[in-house]
Amino acid sequence: MNAEFRIIGKPQRRLDAFDKVTGRMKYTSDYSLPGMLHLKALRSPYPHARIVSIDAQRARALPGVRLVLTQKDFASVTWIPPQPAMSDVARFVGDEIAIVAAKDEETAIEALALIEVKYQPLAFVIDPEEALKPNAPKIFPQGNLIGGKPVVLSRGSIEKGFAEADLVYEARYSTPYLQHATAETRVSVAHWDAGKLTLWESTQGPFELQRAIAKALKIPVSKVRVICEATGGGFGDKGSPGRQAIYASTVARLTGQPAKMELERDENYLAATHRFPVICNLKYGVKKDGTLTAIQAKVTADSGAYSIAGQAALSSLECMASVYRCANMRGEAITAITNNPPTGPMRCVGHPQGTFAQEVHMDVIAEKLGMDPVEFRRKNHVHLEDGDQFRKIPFTSNGLAECITRGSDALQWGQRWARKPQTSGPVKRGLGMALHGCRHGSMLPVMALSGLVKVNVDGTVNVYTGATELGSGQRTTMGIIAAEVLGVLMDDVYVTAADTDMTTDTGTTTGSRQTNTGGNGVRLAALDARNQLLDIAATELKADKKSISIRDGKVFVGSSEKGVPLEDIASKAPGGVIVGRGVMRPPSDVFSHAFAAHFAEVSVDTRTGTVRVERLVAVHDLGRTINLLGAENQIQGGAIQGTAFCLSERQRFDTPTGICVNPDHLNYKLPTIKDAAPVEPMMVESIDAVGPFGAKGVGEPPYSGASPAIANAIYNAIGIRFTELPITNREVLARLQAGQGQRGEKR
Amino acid sequence: MNAEFRIIGKPQRRLDAFDKVTGRMKYTSDYSLPGMLHLKALRSPYPHARIVSIDAQRARALPGVRLVLTQKDFASVTWIPPQPAMSDVARFVGDEIAIVAAKDEETAIEALALIEVKYQPLAFVIDPEEALKPNAPKIFPQGNLIGGKPVVLSRGSIEKGFAEADLVYEARYSTPYLQHATAETRVSVAHWDAGKLTLWESTQGPFELQRAIAKALKIPVSKVRVICEATGGGFGDKGSPGRQAIYASTVARLTGQPAKMELERDENYLAATHRFPVICNLKYGVKKDGTLTAIQAKVTADSGAYSIAGQAALSSLECMASVYRCANMRGEAITAITNNPPTGPMRCVGHPQGTFAQEVHMDVIAEKLGMDPVEFRRKNHVHLEDGDQFRKIPFTSNGLAECITRGSDALQWGQRWARKPQTSGPVKRGLGMALHGCRHGSMLPVMALSGLVKVNVDGTVNVYTGATELGSGQRTTMGIIAAEVLGVLMDDVYVTAADTDMTTDTGTTTGSRQTNTGGNGVRLAALDARNQLLDIAATELKADKKSISIRDGKVFVGSSEKGVPLEDIASKAPGGVIVGRGVMRPPSDVFSHAFAAHFAEVSVDTRTGTVRVERLVAVHDLGRTINLLGAENQIQGGAIQGTAFCLSERQRFDTPTGICVNPDHLNYKLPTIKDAAPVEPMMVESIDAVGPFGAKGVGEPPYSGASPAIANAIYNAIGIRFTELPITNREVLARLQAGQGQRGEKR
Repeated sequence: MNAEFRIIGKPQRRLDAFDKVTGRMKYTSDYSLPGMLHLKALRSPYPHARIVSIDAQRARALPGVRLVLTQKDFASVTWIPPQPAMSDVARFVGDEIAIVAAKDEETAIEALALIEVKYQPLAFVIDPEEALKPNAPKIFPQGNLIGGKPVVLSRGSIEKGFAEADLVYEARYSTPYLQHATAETRVSVAHWDAGKLTLWESTQGPFELQRAIAKALKIPVSKVRVICEATGGGFGDKGSPGRQAIYASTVARLTGQPAKMELERDENYLAATHRFPVICNLKYGVKKDGTLTAIQAKVTADSGAYSIAGQAALSSLECMASVYRCANMRGEAITAITNNPPTGPMRCVGHPQGTFAQEVHMDVIAEKLGMDPVEFRRKNHVHLEDGDQFRKIPFTSNGLAECITRGSDALQWGQRWARKPQTSGPVKRGLGMALHGCRHGSMLPVMALSGLVKVNVDGTVNVYTGATELGSGQRTTMGIIAAEVLGVLMDDVYVTAADTDMTTDTGTTTGSRQTNTGGNGVRLAALDARNQLLDIAATELKADKKSISIRDGKVFVGSSEKGVPLEDIASKAPGGVIVGRGVMRPPSDVFSHAFAAHFAEVSVDTRTGTVRVERLVAVHDLGRTINLLGAENQIQGGAIQGTAFCLSERQRFDTPTGICVNPDHLNYKLPTIKDAAPVEPMMVESIDAVGPFGAKGVGEPPYSGASPAIANAIYNAIGIRFTELPITNREVLARLQAGQGQRGEKR
Repeated sequence: MNAEFRIIGKPQRRLDAFDKVTGRMKYTSDYSLPGMLHLKALRSPYPHARIVSIDAQRARALPGVRLVLTQKDFASVTWIPPQPAMSDVARFVGDEIAIVAAKDEETAIEALALIEVKYQPLAFVIDPEEALKPNAPKIFPQGNLIGGKPVVLSRGSIEKGFAEADLVYEARYSTPYLQHATAETRVSVAHWDAGKLTLWESTQGPFELQRAIAKALKIPVSKVRVICEATGGGFGDKGSPGRQAIYASTVARLTGQPAKMELERDENYLAATHRFPVICNLKYGVKKDGTLTAIQAKVTADSGAYSIAGQAALSSLECMASVYRCANMRGEAITAITNNPPTGPMRCVGHPQGTFAQEVHMDVIAEKLGMDPVEFRRKNHVHLEDGDQFRKIPFTSNGLAECITRGSDALQWGQRWARKPQTSGPVKRGLGMALHGCRHGSMLPVMALSGLVKVNVDGTVNVYTGATELGSGQRTTMGIIAAEVLGVLMDDVYVTAADTDMTTDTGTTTGSRQTNTGGNGVRLAALDARNQLLDIAATELKADKKSISIRDGKVFVGSSEKGVPLEDIASKAPGGVIVGRGVMRPPSDVFSHAFAAHFAEVSVDTRTGTVRVERLVAVHDLGRTINLLGAENQIQGGAIQGTAFCLSERQRFDTPTGICVNPDHLNYKLPTIKDAAPVEPMMVESIDAVGPFGAKGVGEPPYSGASPAIANAIYNAIGIRFTELPITNREVLARLQAGQGQRGEKR
């Protein structure tokens, strides 16, 4: 919170709060158009099979069935690489084989059963390390290793680093297959009218989808409108165009009828994207005084059959490379294709996987050195002057040191933490912590960055942003920025978001960067509009433009307290219209790094294995808080998701068949409100040089720090190291029953 | 058609043609929202009455009735002057007394019958000349003469003019009450959601309505969205906000349910606006050689109970003042309030009334002078150098002389016209002509003028205009202008129109001026976008910006024939976005006058009185043809309406009760396709100095010239002068049977 601002940094109610709490918000799933067809997919029961033939005659003859589409209907369609619109080889259980469009869902489902498919089952592999062995079944002709060879990141000399070390520690860590588990599954509603396609879509990237559809259907971008009024959760799954969009659009085009395709929950578990599992083999070298001398990491990611994340493993490696100062590092990123479901970015992409591994690894090393884990981090973490050690690019700000201090103070780490157990009785308590740093929030120079602002004749404001409202408050953030720049009241601002016909592209709402891209776009647009207002005011009020200010919807000259209503100025616009335009090329070679320190206090009931997170202090360097309420919400939500990553969530596959055995929230163990960790969000404002008003990203990083902080706290409580996630109570109990740890005795 | 243009001036299919011919176009009337309430009005059966009391208890108790609103519910509402949202004095038959909102139309109509109103009938007047007499019932406290005194326009010395004259001729002309008779009646659909009102409205002025609603309901303009996808006819009636909009919006706000109010056909005849009847007393002086020396006109208009047209009579006077060169003129405009239905602008406002009077008057004078009517006009019509003789403002262009030549050539006037009758037998033929000039198409400096253009990454274009698509092709005009400026194909352009959230204000689509306001806005926006494209092209193609041109979606350097796809340039935009913005203050003190000459050939069956328009050559100086097909359509439609004004249409009132006796198309005598005159449109391109590409307005003027040209042709055929409209076959027959004219004999 800052006295120089009137709106920024204060707790601001969501602009769409009323709509959401009253259930009036219209999600894509809520759309139903007259004459609309419903689409259902026939999905492969095999993880790997060639489609020998499809006989859809009986399905087509079923009354109420309008169309059945198969691979040949999409043969000439260019869809998002590497995923074709439809393939004649099924590469995972749930891969689309045919689409039925019928008058209702029931008929479509009935028709699916009438389609006769001859499959030729092929050998399959669902373990990434197995997939890379020479005799593994080839899922694509070019082999199962993405890029054909590992990606190597290297700086300094790893040999020299190990040579300098007094201690070298090596361990293996692994994380599971996860589903984004959005409240709203993937869904598209397509309407084709007089050569113009309107597509309602639950998406994080309306403009990317617009371009993809235009290209796939070979029509002008001007004739495709994508609307995303609200997204019922994205978390990265909806950051790239889903297959349901091309299916619905194709059916709408062929039939002239609106077409809806909404995945069932189990279909979403099968065919939407997933967090890729990562296996990290880490080997770090340190001196006795705690100085890191070598970081060696081999990261293997399972990309599933198709991955939107590309070199997925690299993402896990990158976050490891940027938190600690270390001259010598060698990282190897290996991404394997398997016959598991598709993967892609999920909140913080590969960083939670990498951060879990590294921060547990660091905790072990600290213990081996006999150092306080906080002191060990303080000794090694990157400072502002270090910058990106691989790319030699300076940080724009770095509040990591303050994050550590704020978090350790909150938990009274200095007084309360001890290496030895401090609790008697069956319920043990422990403290743990972890650092996190990543490039989330950074802009890329290839990205769109824009915004539009209209000042109405009564001085009220319409804001137009291409940013999707993901549920994380983007609409409100854009409103705050415009209101702050223009000096108007929040009640007078209306924000239109994520409609390709109404707004301009400002990049996908991914990478925690919309406050930077969309926010900068709106800021520039508002400044442009403000400049026009000041010109009019200078004329109308016969005053020096430089002496004029606007606040709370009034215009002031010099230090006068007597304001002129903004309406009196706005209504005098030459041409009757004030439109502010903000467009800029994002800066190149600048990374706004997000930093965080998480501090956890847990209790472990040694009779049941139940882990309870008693406190989770999540301190984030977000540059500048735009909306206090929104920033706190992001940290809370992300850290709660990170807790579930640590303690419960996992999508499991049956080894002999490759079939997912828990494609539902209950058995997947999505946390309920009773499982939610009591997160205490804290914000460190490092005032970034690039972001609007100094802001950086804060959407994704809160996910990453939670799991190692909790795992380290569990170790502190019961003396058992967990290197695989999730750490379920069953797992804890099994390890305790196996006699591990210092159960029952005071440590 | 011009070689310098690739799209402008060519026949261009309407962008919405497919939607219209397939019935897919969504008019406001087509909107139906879930849970929508239907509104019906209780209307006064008296032309003038005080509402003593209203008892709505029984109506409110009827199952399915949600609300009944009366005057007190609107007491604090500021609506469009002079019309209050609802009054406690009924001032015309059909005035709204109460509004019922119910679950369906049937219930609402049933509830109307249950409302008990005590009226105190007041003395009323429905004749404008009677209304101005001292003892006439006062409709408003300030009296029945709008402005309290006649408006006088004067130049030179009228006395001197008459003194110089060799011939002075005086006569009285009158025209009837007309209805706009739009295919779609007045209709509003209001939806209030989380403090934002969306109003679908059949309107010519979405932004004016947006402001009016915001002011009336005391909410920010940013929280009101008006959408008008298509208008089922406006002709001026929908140029100002109708009462149904405030009723629907108020009900939606109070109930939280969508609300629709759509007038029945008879209600539209009663409570929508009308063309005001005009009585013209003309006295013109001429020299023997045909030189006009004096024009004296007293014009009395009946404004009805409320008039959007303000000093309505002035409009009829103005058009008289601007067609002929005459040093001495005195005009008196008198606008009387009566207890007739509301009036307002209707196609060409007061000009058809004034032009009918003046051009018949001129025809009589020509005959009295023994001059060819064409030669008489040639002698007196204004030239470019005359300009506006009252305001001393130059014309921007004047193609009147060419209009006369083209029209008279088409009808072979020189060879075929004769003062004496040339036909034998019962069916007589005759030729007639008339001139017209008016300021339709002119911009006013207070008006909004703007447009936005987006160039997509594939080089296709979205155009955004606040102009309503009235059915006259505004959307297509804007598309043509953008495509021409940007050098893209029409198929790659999509135009969004008349949505206050998606577009910017560019004035109401009234006054034939949207090609000038909206067209200039889009032209400037397209130039801005083009400039951005040229900058990118200069960088990408390493060429001098000045040497680069764009056509047919390709970019060319110098005289090279090898074009680079525009996509390759557009996709390189810094910031990923190209938005062109066009905003300007319309020029002050410039009037783009529209000019026309109509030439009619009629046949009159003396046995039945039936008048058939055999040919109607309508020649219009429109500055520049933007869309050949659209301009022809406008001229045809307007001249057909003008023909009906001449021969059939009239709304009639019962003198003792003030009740309209023919509130339906059949008895009002709206022309059918079989009555449509075979109009031959011709365009004269005077290349205006102000309009985009030299264009002026052409929407309304085609209405005006038809009626006097036809009336003069009837006189030429049968020797009977008609000075009152309409000239129905019954009227013709009555005059023939009374022995007037030279029936049966060869003249």
